[in-house]
Amino acid sequence: MTMKLYCFGESGNAYKAALPLHLSGLDWEPLKVDFFGGETRTTEYRSNVNEMGEAPVLVDGNTRLTQSGVIQMYIAEKSGKFGGATPDEAREVLRWVFWDNHKLSSQAGMTRFLMNFLPADKRPAEVIAFTQGRLKSAYQVLDAHLAGRDWVVGNGPTNADFSCCGYLFYPEPFGFDRTEWSNIDRWLGNIEELDGWKHPYDLMPGSPADRA
Amino acid sequence: MTMKLYCFGESGNAYKAALPLHLSGLDWEPLKVDFFGGETRTTEYRSNVNEMGEAPVLVDGNTRLTQSGVIQMYIAEKSGKFGGATPDEAREVLRWVFWDNHKLSSQAGMTRFLMNFLPADKRPAEVIAFTQGRLKSAYQVLDAHLAGRDWVVGNGPTNADFSCCGYLFYPEPFGFDRTEWSNIDRWLGNIEELDGWKHPYDLMPGSPADRA
Repeated sequence: MTMKLYCFGESGNAYKAALPLHLSGLDWEPLKVDFFGGETRTTEYRSNVNEMGEAPVLVDGNTRLTQSGVIQMYIAEKSGKFGGATPDEAREVLRWVFWDNHKLSSQAGMTRFLMNFLPADKRPAEVIAFTQGRLKSAYQVLDAHLAGRDWVVGNGPTNADFSCCGYLFYPEPFGFDRTEWSNIDRWLGNIEELDGWKHPYDLMPGSPADRA
Repeated sequence: MTMKLYCFGESGNAYKAALPLHLSGLDWEPLKVDFFGGETRTTEYRSNVNEMGEAPVLVDGNTRLTQSGVIQMYIAEKSGKFGGATPDEAREVLRWVFWDNHKLSSQAGMTRFLMNFLPADKRPAEVIAFTQGRLKSAYQVLDAHLAGRDWVVGNGPTNADFSCCGYLFYPEPFGFDRTEWSNIDRWLGNIEELDGWKHPYDLMPGSPADRA
């Protein structure tokens, strides 16, 4: 049965699930969530889709999973790909996925939202400056880790890469310029060169162009 | 061999690892990290202990793990406790651990730091108001989930509980009052009644009293 992923193009968190789904070759299709129309805040969405009021959500028969990190682990179990080659690698993959959720994607997604998807007169300047400072610390950690490495863990792409890159391909400004981080820049290039790689706006339905 | 946990009393993220270590009956001891003296920011700590510059870190022989969620899963593997009774439960546990890292503990820890551990004239009011608003949404999700439940997942305590409660027992103000959230309040009482439960300041070395 074709799996369904509740997602939308602007969501880097959804991209973290959609990219390994796509690259694994599993049978799936996207189901667009109208985030900007308020769908995730409705009682119906919270009751029937995800009580956390978030995307992505993966539905595979009777299994319903949320949180991109959990969906990534499920994809790794089901496809045998991207989860790490050994138990040690699997823990190292999970370590970077947690770090990303805590320190990188969560802050990047929030900062990008505040800077691009709020009306200009509602953008909280002090909050944006603060989260950009925290993000700079996260870029430093990731860039230092990637020195001399092609992938975050081991010798090929894993969910650690697909998690950490979640927001880094988007064109909207949030204080990240990949040319300032040479190791991150090279690593993002490695991801872009993966056979079948797609940009978030090409992989999932919905983009700012729809609302222009 | 006795496992060592790099931790300090003020860290709810460390508590998320220390509490299941303690309650599982595994052999471990705490190793105090001098966070407030800047230890996690040193080159030595980043080179030898954790490149992410964070606590907790668990050392078990040649295995070195960081990120509380990864340490929790390792404890579950090693002790057979707190990981969920079935594969479905294990995924549900992990889902709440990710949610906590993304939406609850990360914001609570930051807000508590800004409100209590920065000098009074350096506390960013706009940032604090913003993160308190995000936290309120997280409390709503958790409180609604706990209606009619004793535990976050299944019929007994799991790492989902130990993750979500990470910052909620601390006395320092960060905009959380458990008496305002009846389901959270009852659930925290269930955790406090677990045989052997300890408050973070009793379980790990270091507390604000040391620096008073």
